[in-house]
Order: sequence, then structure tokens, then C-alpha cells
Amino acid sequence: MQPTKLRGIIPPMITPLKGDDELDREGTVRLTEHLVAGGVHAIFLLGTTGEAQSLTYRLRYEFVELVCRQVAGRIPVLVGVTDTAFIESVRLAEHAAKCGAVGVVAAPPYYFAPSQQELIEYYTALADALPLPLYLYNMPSHVKVFLEPATVKTLANHPNIVGLKDSSANMTYFQTLLYHLGDNPDFSLYVGPEELTGECVLLGADGGVNGGANIFPELYVAMYDAACAHDITRVREIQRRIMQISTSVYTVGKYGSSYLKGVKCALSLLGVCDDYLSYPYRKFRTEERARIRQALEALGANCNV
Amino acid sequence: MQPTKLRGIIPPMITPLKGDDELDREGTVRLTEHLVAGGVHAIFLLGTTGEAQSLTYRLRYEFVELVCRQVAGRIPVLVGVTDTAFIESVRLAEHAAKCGAVGVVAAPPYYFAPSQQELIEYYTALADALPLPLYLYNMPSHVKVFLEPATVKTLANHPNIVGLKDSSANMTYFQTLLYHLGDNPDFSLYVGPEELTGECVLLGADGGVNGGANIFPELYVAMYDAACAHDITRVREIQRRIMQISTSVYTVGKYGSSYLKGVKCALSLLGVCDDYLSYPYRKFRTEERARIRQALEALGANCNV
Amino acid sequence: MQPTKLRGIIPPMITPLKGDDELDREGTVRLTEHLVAGGVHAIFLLGTTGEAQSLTYRLRYEFVELVCRQVAGRIPVLVGVTDTAFIESVRLAEHAAKCGAVGVVAAPPYYFAPSQQELIEYYTALADALPLPLYLYNMPSHVKVFLEPATVKTLANHPNIVGLKDSSANMTYFQTLLYHLGDNPDFSLYVGPEELTGECVLLGADGGVNGGANIFPELYVAMYDAACAHDITRVREIQRRIMQISTSVYTVGKYGSSYLKGVKCALSLLGVCDDYLSYPYRKFRTEERARIRQALEALGANCNV
Amino acid sequence: MQPTKLRGIIPPMITPLKGDDELDREGTVRLTEHLVAGGVHAIFLLGTTGEAQSLTYRLRYEFVELVCRQVAGRIPVLVGVTDTAFIESVRLAEHAAKCGAVGVVAAPPYYFAPSQQELIEYYTALADALPLPLYLYNMPSHVKVFLEPATVKTLANHPNIVGLKDSSANMTYFQTLLYHLGDNPDFSLYVGPEELTGECVLLGADGGVNGGANIFPELYVAMYDAACAHDITRVREIQRRIMQISTSVYTVGKYGSSYLKGVKCALSLLGVCDDYLSYPYRKFRTEERARIRQALEALGANCNV
Repeated sequence: MQPTKLRGIIPPMITPLKGDDELDREGTVRLTEHLVAGGVHAIFLLGTTGEAQSLTYRLRYEFVELVCRQVAGRIPVLVGVTDTAFIESVRLAEHAAKCGAVGVVAAPPYYFAPSQQELIEYYTALADALPLPLYLYNMPSHVKVFLEPATVKTLANHPNIVGLKDSSANMTYFQTLLYHLGDNPDFSLYVGPEELTGECVLLGADGGVNGGANIFPELYVAMYDAACAHDITRVREIQRRIMQISTSVYTVGKYGSSYLKGVKCALSLLGVCDDYLSYPYRKFRTEERARIRQALEALGANCNV
Repeated sequence: MQPTKLRGIIPPMITPLKGDDELDREGTVRLTEHLVAGGVHAIFLLGTTGEAQSLTYRLRYEFVELVCRQVAGRIPVLVGVTDTAFIESVRLAEHAAKCGAVGVVAAPPYYFAPSQQELIEYYTALADALPLPLYLYNMPSHVKVFLEPATVKTLANHPNIVGLKDSSANMTYFQTLLYHLGDNPDFSLYVGPEELTGECVLLGADGGVNGGANIFPELYVAMYDAACAHDITRVREIQRRIMQISTSVYTVGKYGSSYLKGVKCALSLLGVCDDYLSYPYRKFRTEERARIRQALEALGANCNV
Repeated sequence: MQPTKLRGIIPPMITPLKGDDELDREGTVRLTEHLVAGGVHAIFLLGTTGEAQSLTYRLRYEFVELVCRQVAGRIPVLVGVTDTAFIESVRLAEHAAKCGAVGVVAAPPYYFAPSQQELIEYYTALADALPLPLYLYNMPSHVKVFLEPATVKTLANHPNIVGLKDSSANMTYFQTLLYHLGDNPDFSLYVGPEELTGECVLLGADGGVNGGANIFPELYVAMYDAACAHDITRVREIQRRIMQISTSVYTVGKYGSSYLKGVKCALSLLGVCDDYLSYPYRKFRTEERARIRQALEALGANCNV
Repeated sequence: MQPTKLRGIIPPMITPLKGDDELDREGTVRLTEHLVAGGVHAIFLLGTTGEAQSLTYRLRYEFVELVCRQVAGRIPVLVGVTDTAFIESVRLAEHAAKCGAVGVVAAPPYYFAPSQQELIEYYTALADALPLPLYLYNMPSHVKVFLEPATVKTLANHPNIVGLKDSSANMTYFQTLLYHLGDNPDFSLYVGPEELTGECVLLGADGGVNGGANIFPELYVAMYDAACAHDITRVREIQRRIMQISTSVYTVGKYGSSYLKGVKCALSLLGVCDDYLSYPYRKFRTEERARIRQALEALGANCNV
């Protein structure tokens, strides 16, 4: 279906906001340019890092349109259409297609917990109804169910299902997918957690959908390149830096949301966009913000704000 | 705020469908009349049993309007506004208020898993923004987080938060709420699982939000009355019948969704409405339908279809 | 097999300790007399509240022998033989039989997580090998697996399996067991959490295995009697007192072990026995101990120490 | 404390049995020789794969003695002392020391679920009391708690705590440990799941505690060597073979125990030892055994039995 596989670093773009239903349009433009300039291979909108579920449909539609226009075909755009309502997923995908996106991404419905058989039926119907190629999204911590390897193998046969992003951090699972599907020229495998991009690409994955690439796109692109080149010394060197980010920018406060708050706060400190977070989360306050600033400075970044 | 507490049986009404985005309007009217005739004390639309999360907003709005018009003030109507997007909850509540609903019900956001402190901030902001009194909805199996007793105690002080429905089936939890809030004249406590309505009302709960009351409304009303009258012999007698339903109508097939499929299938067999289920679920097929018919007949019900 | 059912309050006796491998023998004697004087209907040794898993086999054997000798047949004694090693369960049961215990209690093995079919095979083999009647023990929070209703129904047919204690607090589960087995004259159903004894006995359970009965045995016996007499007013009155204990004595500190620490600390303050806790837990320190003292005084208890 | 780090492949040896309390002594000798001949760098007795928790203490002691005598110092022996009872862990460690083992391994207590602070106190006391260096064992699926990175960092300062084996398969966790402790010359990091040994060693881990090395010790040693040599082409090649084992030998039957049953069945088919499994598990029957034979033959192994 799709002519060539997407390979490389595909940041799950945050959604710059000024309020629960107000987009930070200038921030969105700046962040888009920041990512393109950073050399990323594609962008993924409205994923978990994009707070998609917390946004109104209106705002999601506006955001897709704005980013696609700004990107203007320079790199491929993927759009998350994960939803509990089948029809809303299809509609958002239709909008994404009109705006110029090249694919959509869908985690399982996340209120009810479908069985593996129900997942097969659901994804088959969805892929049939979608105007764009579909990437599966394994995200068990947020949607309660795992896309088991047998399920993924079955779904990979559908001509309109072209890949999977795994955010489980369970490498036995990911290695099992690589074993079954790593050689399939029509199916891509991406890893979510940026701490794992190096090793996954070394072992055959097609790339990383890494949240930290919102902040430091070049760093993750460098990791991808080093891993493709089988340069272990360089991979280990970059890995240390990625882990420094992971253990300093994403671990402030006692929140399940430390990662998301950290990424948005960092982008705000770097002058890229607003750090407003939609409910149920709230942005960092002064003290936590100071710790993120410290973490960024330790990483050698210039805080402009 | 609200003049008197709602007490009694409040069925979480199923949403009769003909397709993923098509309401069964005739079935909706028939089911509404079935419930009113059965003597229930109120109706709760768009809960878990109502498949709210699987429906488009358009259909949810249509359903609220249709049921409110049909009920025409004969009994109070509550509307579920549980959503991952704050603004969508508020908008649906505004629509519900216009249609004549008397209260709304909200479980925690269910994609991200908020901390207890974040839940307090979320619900406080929501209750401030809503045009109708708010009932909390504890549903940990579907939303991942528990509304802990200390959180509920704090939220119960908000003038616009007037009660809680607990679907956890964890009675230590419910007894803890009864201990802290059972004597509060401005806060109601309802139990979700119908298997527990008898004992909960005996111990001080205000009623039951019981799915089986879609099928046999009188039975659950009888349980409520028996428990209010402290008639243990009668409570035990009705309990056997409720357990017969629970262990026959809700246990067909190896699905996490057996309960929902069973209720819709039963209503279809009784000639009340269509049994279409929205994704990610699909309705029972012939063999399972035959087992539900058998279960209903063992209960003495007349299958018209 | 057993002539008459055990009915009533069966405290899961704490194990008074002076060190990780040293029994508080005087405290054990005093606690035994405290329980017998309090009118309890039986005693259950080496359950979760008894810290069985944290004790050496040597100490477990010593404790069973000491309590059985002290009880001297005045009330029945049950002994927990829950173990990950089948043979160790059988040996402890043989020791219990020699000491005069009338039954043993076993939760599923708790390191590996057996399937329901494996549980049936395990319990069947165990019941075959045991010299005493066996009570099943459902304790999913500690052993990871649920004894599903269908499994319990199957096992209840074994002539040497005579009952079940449920500590899940899941009342839909317990009501399902009551429905299937409540009328079986050869199978008893007990509830673990003391917050639920009133309602469970009202609905047909045979009694409660309630940790708080270590401290206030008369109170839980009074609840059992009130529930047997269907005296709802009295049940509610006692329920308030049980909930006062539950929400003050068991909730000090941020520990999963607050309940166990609270019970042992209370018994120490009442002058009954030492409050030493075996690893991985440690007893309360001064500040927390002061809060337990306060809670006991609010309950009208005399702290002797 | 210990002069040099253990590095390489350390099979978690299965425990050859003839019955629940009967060791297969001849099988134990053959398996020991099979492992030594296969070039493994050390052996780990009485881990999860060794069914330690299901065995009597008597048998555990016998097994440690027999293997240590058979190994006769040719390679280092580690002994699992994971237990819910502190004192039993210490005693088994004393026995292991007498028999010539060089270290012990302990997962957290697995009946109660300790907090991180309680884990720090528990492991500190244990390491103080043990006659041998202690390796931590992270095994959340079986013991319910995670050894969080901050906890491990604290414990790594104890002079008698010298390493950690991680069986979580969560690579974000393992990468975090590598980041914090990978350069610590006195602390070793091993990975449990054999599917991850290649990438973990590439990124800096000290080795793998891989169950499959019971069957094919040379294969896992080859993976370790390839990863140490940074030979990605060879790593990927061996990885395919390891995944073939993982997806054929460990996936027969619908059991949580498929892995353990598969390993024992394979060793029996290869003529190494008996495939008896202790409760709560039972060995494969004829049909499943045939599928394991098939899987082994597809791997080119000679089934002697």
C-alpha cells in the first residue's frame, strides 16, 4: 500500500496549549519548525504525549490542520485517532487525510477492555473504514489490554495495517514482534520509550517514537544513525545522555504525569511554546519548574525564558 | 442545592442502537416506558451500561434529548458526562440541563490515571463549571483509579457534588464511605452491582444503580422496598432471584462483556429494543442468544421474539 | 465428614513474638485466654494476620502446640497451612492434628500463579493427603489468583473440603458463592474483612474471620449475634463501632501493613502481648504508637501500658 | 568484598525431581556436567526456574550440597535464598556457604508486599546477616513489588550487596539501573529473560541468567561472546535462534507455566533428567510432549528419549 516504510525518529508531538480548549498557535508553529530543523523523519500528532484524549475534537481538528499546513510536505505526518468511539476515529482520520497526513495511529479502545478476538474484529473494521494506512499502538498502561503477538501477526496481514508502535517497555514482547514481523517489508516496528531506541534499532526496529525528541530532536536522530551504523561505542555514549534526560527531566514531582509535565515545562523554558496542560493534569509550579531549569542547564541547554 | 435526595432504584439505561451511529428510537421509547412502568425512582443515561464511551457525541446528545422528552418529568433523569476531555463533559452537561435532566454523573478521566490530588482539582473545577449537581462515579476496573475515601470526603464538601455511585464491588470501601458520609443529608451513596443492593440498603445506602433493572425493573424496586423495610426474609428471597439472573444472563460466553451483551440480548428477546452493540463489542450470535432465551425462560419471562 | 458446621466469629489470631524466631509465650497464653473469655466460637492460627509466611517452621510448630494446649478443647482450633511447598503444608497439618486442631486452612500457593485447573488439581491432592478437613482461603491480594466460583463449586464436592474464607472484600464474588453453596449443609462460608461480617451473616454467611476480634472479641461476637437475630438496628449500631476501629486503628502510617501493625500495637497497649513484627515489617515507633493509643482511648479502651 | 565480578551466562538451573520431595540425583549430576561442558560462567540454584518455593527445605539443602560437590569448584555457584521468612533465608545461606557456594540471590519476600523503605530495611538486615555476598533479584510478576531504582542505588552501597538480576523484562527499568550502576566496579547487573541478553550485554550488562541455557548452554554463551565483541551481525543471527526457542519451546499449552514445563520437558527429551514438576504445576502430557519434541527437532536437537 504505502510505497516505502517510514524509518527513523518520529516525535510524538506535544500539543501546545493556552487553555483547555485554546491552542497555542504560535507555539505550534515554532515547535513544528524546531522538529523539522532537528532532522526528524516524521511527526506523530495526537498521541499520548499529545494529550489527545484530554482535548476537544474541535481543537484536535484545528491542531492537525495547523501542523500539516506548517509542515507543508517536508516530512510525513501521522495522526493519532485512538478513540473509544469507532466513528469518531474514522472521522478524525478523514480530516487528517484531507489535511495531508500520510497515516493514522490507533491504540485499542480504552474504556472497555476488549478481548484479543474483539481487537482483531475492531481493528479489521477500522482498517477497512479508514482512508489512510493504519499503525497499531500498543499502550497497555493506558488502555488496559495488550496487543498480543498472535493478534498483531493476524492484523499484519491486513493490507491497510502497516506497522506498530510499542510503548509497553516490555522487551520480550518487542523481540517477539521483531522475530515474527521484523523481516516483513510491509510492516514497520517502532519503539516508544526513548530509553530503548538504541537497542531496538540495533536489533532491527524501524525507529523510535520518542517524546524527548520534542526537546532535543537532533539527539534522538543521532542515536538512530549510530544504531543503524552498528556503532556501539557511539550508541552507548548517546544512551548516557538520553538517560540523563530521562532521569532528570522526567522525574520531578510525585506524579504519574512527571514525564509529560517535564517535556512541556522544558519546551516552555526553551522558549518554544506554552506549558499549559489540559485536565486532569496541571503544569509544574515554580519550585518544580526551577528543577527542570536546573536539569536543562546540566544538559547544556540554554533556557531562554 | 438539590431539595431532596434521590433514593431508590436508578437503572443505568442501556442505549438501544441500530448501528454504531444510529439510535433505535422506537426501542428507546419502549424501554423508557418499560422502566417508568416498572416503578424505578430515576433513570441514569450514558453510563457504562449505556456504552457512552463507544458512542459519538452526536448520538449521545440525541439520546439524552429523546429520553428526557419521553420521560416528560415523570421521574428524574441523570446523565453520564464521564469524559477524558473536560470541556466535552461540560458541554454534554449543558445539553442535559437544557433537556431537563436533574443531575450528571462523572467517573474520573480514564486515559491518563490522575493522582488523588489531581482528582480533587479536576472534580472541583468540573463541579464549578457544571450547570447541574454532580454525582461521582467510582469505577476502578474501567478507569484505573479509585476515588479514595479521603478524596470523596473532601469533594463531598463542594456544594455542587451531591453523591457517589460505587461500582467497585469492594464492600470495605463502600462501608468506609457509609461510615464517613452515610449520615450526610446532602450526599447520597448508591451501589452499582445489583448483587449488593440488598445489603447496601440494609446498611444505609440510598439505592442501587442496577443494570438488571433494565430487564426486570420491578424486581429491583422490590428489593429496595424489602431492604428499607428491614425484611430480611424477603431480602434473601429476592436476592436468590437476583443471583439467578446474575449467574445465568450475565455469564454467557467468555467475554469481559458478557454482562452488557446479556442485558441487550435479553431486552431484544423480550421485544423491547434492538441488541446491536457498538464497537469494540459485538452482539451475541445464535448459540449464545439461545442460552439467554433459556435463562430468561427459567426466570419465567416471556420471550416475545 | 465433620459432624457440625463451625459458625460464628473465628479470630485470625496474631502470633505474639519477641523476635523473628522467638515466640512471646506469656503473651500467647494471655491472648488465648482473652479470646476464649471474649466468647469467640473458634480460633484460626497462622493466617495472614498471624504472619505465618514470615515465621520459621520451628516457630509455627511451637505456636500451634502452645495454643492448642492452652485452649484445651474449650473451642475448636483451625490452623493455616498455606505454603508454596505442598509437602510442608501436609507436614504442618499432621502436626496440627496431633496437637488437637480440628481443621486446616489453605490459600493457593503464592509464588507461582496457578491456573484454575491447576488449583483444582492442587487442592484435590492436598485434601486427599491431609489428616484434617480443609477450608479454602481466597486471598487474591496476597496470592495473586482468585478461587473462581466454578473452581470452588467443583472443590466443594470433595468430602474433605468443608468451607471457604473469603478475604477479597469483593461482595459480588461472595454473593455468588452464597448463591451456589449457601444452602450446602457440608460447606461453610466465612468472610474475612470485619467491615462486612454484619451484612454477610444477614445474607447467609456462617461467620467472620475478623482480625479486630483479637482486640475486641466481644464486639464481633455481638455483631454475629445481632445479624443472626436479623436485628438491623443493632447491626447498624455495632457496624459504626467496627468502622471506627477500621478507620482509626488500621490506618496509621502510609504502609500496606497498617492493619497488622495496628492490631499488634493495640494488643501491646492493652497489655496482652508484645508488638514485635517479623520481617519484612517492623512495629510502629513512638509517634504512631501514640496515635493508636489515642484511637483506643476514643473507643473507650483502657491502655495498660 | 568479592575479588572480581561474575560475568557471562549463569543458568538458573532447574531442579531435577522424581517426586515432590524426591530429587533426581542422577539427572542432577548429568545436568551439572551438561552445563559445565557448555561453557557457562557460573550456575544459579534454587531460583524461579529451580522451583525453589515449591520444594521442601530438606530437598533444597540436598540439592545445593549435591550440585556444589559435583561442580567441585570448576565454576562459581550461586544459591537462591528467597523466602518469606527472614531466618530461613539466613540458614539456607549458611548451608550454601558450607557447601562452597560463592554468593546468594534473594528476591523480596513474596507474601506480604513491602514498601520500598521496608525493602531497604529488610535487605540491609539480610545482607548484614548473610555469610556470603548477596545479589538482589527483581521479579515483580512473582513477588508483587518492584525494586525501584532509588532503592537499588541505596542498597548498592552496602558492602555485601554486589549485584542484581532483573527478570521484569522492563527495559526502561534496566536501562535506568545501567545508567546509575553500570559503571560501578563492585556491582553487577544481569538480565533474566534470555530474549534480552544480546541487547543488554551490548549496552553494558554483565551477563544473562537465562533459563534456556539449561537446554542449550553453548548458544547463550555464544550470544554473550558476540555481544561482548560488539558483533551485531552475529548477535542478530543468534537472536533469531533464541527467539525460535522462546516462541516454540516455551509456548506450548495455555499455562502461565509453559516456560518451566517446556524447559523440563525438553531436558527430559534430551535424556538429561526427569521432567517431574512439583505442585502447583504438573508436567506436560503426551500431546504437549510431542509438540516440544517437534520444536526441538526443528532446532536440530537430538531427542534421545
